[in-house]
Amino acid sequence: MRGAVMYAPGDVRVEDRPDPTILEPTDAIVRLAASCVCGSDLWPYRGIETLDGPRPMGHEYVGTVEAAGDAVSTIKPGQFVVGSFFASDNTCEVCRSGYQTSCIHREGVGGAQAQLMRVPLADGTLVATPGVPAADMIPSLLAASDVLGTGWFGAVAAQAGPSKTVAVVGDGAVGLLAVLAAKQLGAERIIAMSRHESRQALARDFGATDIVTERGDEGAARVKELTGGLGAHSVVEAVGTQESMMQAIRATRPGGHVGYVGVLHGVSLPGEELFFSHVHLHGGPAPVRRLLPELIDLIWNRRIDPGKVFDLELPLERAADGYAAMDERRAIKVLLRP
Amino acid sequence: MRGAVMYAPGDVRVEDRPDPTILEPTDAIVRLAASCVCGSDLWPYRGIETLDGPRPMGHEYVGTVEAAGDAVSTIKPGQFVVGSFFASDNTCEVCRSGYQTSCIHREGVGGAQAQLMRVPLADGTLVATPGVPAADMIPSLLAASDVLGTGWFGAVAAQAGPSKTVAVVGDGAVGLLAVLAAKQLGAERIIAMSRHESRQALARDFGATDIVTERGDEGAARVKELTGGLGAHSVVEAVGTQESMMQAIRATRPGGHVGYVGVLHGVSLPGEELFFSHVHLHGGPAPVRRLLPELIDLIWNRRIDPGKVFDLELPLERAADGYAAMDERRAIKVLLRP
Repeated sequence: MRGAVMYAPGDVRVEDRPDPTILEPTDAIVRLAASCVCGSDLWPYRGIETLDGPRPMGHEYVGTVEAAGDAVSTIKPGQFVVGSFFASDNTCEVCRSGYQTSCIHREGVGGAQAQLMRVPLADGTLVATPGVPAADMIPSLLAASDVLGTGWFGAVAAQAGPSKTVAVVGDGAVGLLAVLAAKQLGAERIIAMSRHESRQALARDFGATDIVTERGDEGAARVKELTGGLGAHSVVEAVGTQESMMQAIRATRPGGHVGYVGVLHGVSLPGEELFFSHVHLHGGPAPVRRLLPELIDLIWNRRIDPGKVFDLELPLERAADGYAAMDERRAIKVLLRP
Repeated sequence: MRGAVMYAPGDVRVEDRPDPTILEPTDAIVRLAASCVCGSDLWPYRGIETLDGPRPMGHEYVGTVEAAGDAVSTIKPGQFVVGSFFASDNTCEVCRSGYQTSCIHREGVGGAQAQLMRVPLADGTLVATPGVPAADMIPSLLAASDVLGTGWFGAVAAQAGPSKTVAVVGDGAVGLLAVLAAKQLGAERIIAMSRHESRQALARDFGATDIVTERGDEGAARVKELTGGLGAHSVVEAVGTQESMMQAIRATRPGGHVGYVGVLHGVSLPGEELFFSHVHLHGGPAPVRRLLPELIDLIWNRRIDPGKVFDLELPLERAADGYAAMDERRAIKVLLRP
C-alpha cells in the first residue's frame, strides 16, 4: 500500500509500505476513506519535536473495516467507522470516567495517512456510523476523529454553555471547531481570536459573535474590554505555546475556566500568577472516544458541518504539498484522499 | 491599643499603636475576641517574602463590632462577627459568582493581631453569628475566618464528595481542616500526608482513613499504590512549594481534581506534564466569605470543631513566641488573646 512517512523536518514522502496486518486479536484493519494533516504533525515538521527515525504519519481517520481480530466483538468488517488518535479499551475505570485518552491500556495510533491502517483495541476505539455515509459527509466525520473532538473537549473543559462568554485562542481547525462547539453548547457570546480574514469568516460562520485580532497580553486586554473588564467566563486554548497559554489565562475572569487543548510545548506556568488568577484549568489530549457517539449523531443528522475546516483537498500522493500548505498557513486543514 | 508588628524576618514585636478609626463610611471597627498566626505569616518571618517596612500583622479575626460607618447597613455595633482576610463588596459580578477574594473592590485586611482593627467594606466582608458565642466556640469561629475556610475551599476545588478518595498534601492547619471538610462533604476515603504523630492523630480525628508519610514523588507513588494504581480522585494542596504542588498533581488520577490553596511561592508548572496528566486544577485565595454562612452554621450547631487545630494559646503580648512555635513546628496553630 501507499503511505506517508516523515523522514526529517520538512521531508514527508509517500512511498510503498507493507500492508498492515492483525497483530493482536483486538486489532482491526481499516481501509481509509480519507485522512488529513494535523496541526500537531507540524511540530516535528518544523523540527520543534524530535523525530527518532522515519515516522509513518497520520492519526485522524475514517474508513471501512477490512478485517477484525478474533477478540473484536462489536466492530465488524464492512462497517464505516470513525476512530480516535489514542486506542483505548473503553472499559477501564479511567475510560468509564470519560478519559479514554488516559486509558490504562492506551496505545498511540499512527500511519493514518495511508491506504490501510491497523487500529488496536478496535472495540474500545472505533465507533461505527449508522450506515455508509454520503460522500459529502466524509470530511465532517473525519473532523470528528480529532479536530472536532478536540475543539469540543476544549469547549467542554472551559465549561462553555448558556449565558457564558467564550473566547477561543487559536484559529486553526481546532480553534475554529471550538467556536462551533461553544455555539452548540449554547454560549451567548463567542469571541474568536484571529487575524486571518478567511479564518475569521469561518469562525463567524461557525457562530463567533466577535473577532479579536490582537494577540498575547494585548489580546487578553481586548477580551477584558469586551467583557466589562472581567474577562471571559470560558477560554479555549488551541495553540500550545507559552504566549497563547498565558493569553488564555489572562483573558479569563476570576472563577472562570480555561480549557486547553493545544499540545503544550516548552510551556511553564507561573504558580503565583495562576494562584491569584482564580481560574480553573483543565485540558490535555481530548478523549474523543467519549464524544464520538454524540458528534457522529450531530453530523449524521446534518446539524453541524465541521468538514468546512478542510479548505484544501489533495490525493494522498501529494501529502508533502499538504504539509507545506499548512505549515505556511495557506490552508487551515488539508484532507488527503488515499 | 496593643498590636503585633513585624520589623524584619524573625522580629515580631507587640507595641502601642494608634487605635484604628473609621476612614470610609463602609468601614467597621472590631474589638478582637481572638486572633492567630497564619502559615502565610511565616513566609515574611522566614525571609522568603520581602517586607517593605514594618508590617502590622494578622488577618484572621473574630470579635465584637465597636463602631460602623454611616454607609454600613447590615452590620451593627454589638454584633459578634467573623470576617475574611480580603474585604469584598459581596455585590459585584465576581462576588456573586462566589469569588469574593477577587472582588473588583477587594482590599487586603491587616493588623488583626491586635486589640482593635479596621475592616473595610464591612457589609460585604463580615458575617454576624446568631448571638454571642460561648467561650469554647470562639476558636472554631476564628478558624472559620481563614484556615477552615481555606481548607474547605481546597476540598471543594478538588471536588471532594461521596464515593471519592481524597488525598491532602500538607499537615498544617489548612491541610488538617481540608481533611475535616472532605469528611463533611462525604468523601469515602481520606488520605492525610503527614509524618508528624500529633498531626496524624488530629487528621484521624477529623476523618482521615489513611496516613501516608512519604513525600514528593514517593508520596505520590504511595497514593497511587493505595488507589489501584490510578491516584486519588481529589487532591488538596495546602503547602505551596514546587515539590508539594507536583506531589499533588502526580497523586491525582486522570480526570481528577487538584484543589490548591497553599500560596504558591516560586512555583513553575511544566506544561507538557500538566497536559498529559489530564487533571483539573483550581485554587487560589479562598473565597471565605462565600463559605462563612455555612461554616458558622456548622460550628454554631456543634457539628464540627475546627478549633482543635489551635494547640497553643498565648496572650497577644507573647505573639513573638507564637511565631517561633509555628516556625519550629512545635505548634500547629497559635491562638492569640488580646
